[in-house]
Amino acid sequence: MTASAPIVILVNPQLGANIGMAARAMLNCGLTELRIVAPRDGWPNPEALDAAVSDSRILVENAPVFDTTAEAVADLTHVYATTGRGREMVERIVTPRAAGREMRSLAADGARIGVLFGSERAGLGNDDISLADTIIRAPLNPDFKSLNLGHAVLMVSYEWFATEDETEEEVLDIGTAHVATKGELDNFMRHLVEGLDSGNYFRAKEMRPIVVRNIRNLFQRARATEQELRTMHGVIVALKKAGRAEEGAD
Amino acid sequence: MTASAPIVILVNPQLGANIGMAARAMLNCGLTELRIVAPRDGWPNPEALDAAVSDSRILVENAPVFDTTAEAVADLTHVYATTGRGREMVERIVTPRAAGREMRSLAADGARIGVLFGSERAGLGNDDISLADTIIRAPLNPDFKSLNLGHAVLMVSYEWFATEDETEEEVLDIGTAHVATKGELDNFMRHLVEGLDSGNYFRAKEMRPIVVRNIRNLFQRARATEQELRTMHGVIVALKKAGRAEEGAD
Repeated sequence: MTASAPIVILVNPQLGANIGMAARAMLNCGLTELRIVAPRDGWPNPEALDAAVSDSRILVENAPVFDTTAEAVADLTHVYATTGRGREMVERIVTPRAAGREMRSLAADGARIGVLFGSERAGLGNDDISLADTIIRAPLNPDFKSLNLGHAVLMVSYEWFATEDETEEEVLDIGTAHVATKGELDNFMRHLVEGLDSGNYFRAKEMRPIVVRNIRNLFQRARATEQELRTMHGVIVALKKAGRAEEGAD
Repeated sequence: MTASAPIVILVNPQLGANIGMAARAMLNCGLTELRIVAPRDGWPNPEALDAAVSDSRILVENAPVFDTTAEAVADLTHVYATTGRGREMVERIVTPRAAGREMRSLAADGARIGVLFGSERAGLGNDDISLADTIIRAPLNPDFKSLNLGHAVLMVSYEWFATEDETEEEVLDIGTAHVATKGELDNFMRHLVEGLDSGNYFRAKEMRPIVVRNIRNLFQRARATEQELRTMHGVIVALKKAGRAEEGAD
């Protein structure tokens, strides 16, 4: 978390719950500075504190409140405004994803960045928009573009976080186990095929190598662990035992 | 919107408001099929309908309710489970972004896909997780990973939508105006520099070309429209007029 992470600025928010949810979304994504402009229901707002759970309550408690948007952005060098509506003005418009990358790059150069979010009912007014350098507009279902305030804050915060996140896109978490070696897999297949042969599974001899290959492929594709193959060895033993028991019962 | 878009499955959701917000987030991102497993407060839930605004109420109204997760996924071919916690089992884990791309590709091949979301208090149980092929885990602030249910649904839905969205990452929206041609910019600069010369602005002669270049660069960088340059021509005229008026007033 850098000192120059974007500041979220809620302009005329109406519902305390949305303020709290915005704070929660921010902290989920490593943003910690929240500002409020002229909240409808006054300040402090107990509903905002309720909706912000555990640590994110601190963001709400520490949020400075301003009378005007101009005052809330006065110390900033770069201001973004979020809006889904087109305006009668010349606007540079970026997606949340592009904004995330751009804000990272600006922050690295020492910029002080703020992102404006408008009220639930009306969004940002043109006077607020005109304080911003750039519009952020999320690509959304054109037939249903109205985004909840907390959701809008999450979307921008998430894209900020994602730009520097180094989580691998795909991992196989096998804890302390290890994926079976090819030798362990061969060993298991030998055990299995022995049982299948003695159970007279392969009626069509010419199909035997194909079926064996397909079964091996199934366990390989699953990236079975050594532990799981040991379990399957036990399954083979148990099934053979069940056969003997059933024979005895006949 | 394809028939094979992912189905969102809320398992034991507690708060109606979160069910409604999930539906809203889904429709924002073009998802339309919601299923509910054993909701805590019964069904139908008026609070869920209240939180889902306008068209997204239909998703709530049409949501089938199941007693068990197994029944809710019985007709599906690919199931994802969302969880932030590690489990004592072998898991394939992907990010929401990777999941979005993967689900698009699976859907194109005719897969029936579902995504499980657990309850607000406890998330998904291991029995639910074991019904899934793949875990989706969002990279989040490691010190504050607890995501609101509606926010989690938004994140996955948004990444699904983003994979096929073709919105340009950056546009300059100038409505019906056009960015000024270089000739229009030259013309404006001539008008301006004429005024500066006659106002004796360039005291250090050798600085004149540098300052002129810098001013031109400012308007060029702003990608001023032809309309804006006409406004600025008017500004030059008005300032000169103000000078004459002030002289008269002296």
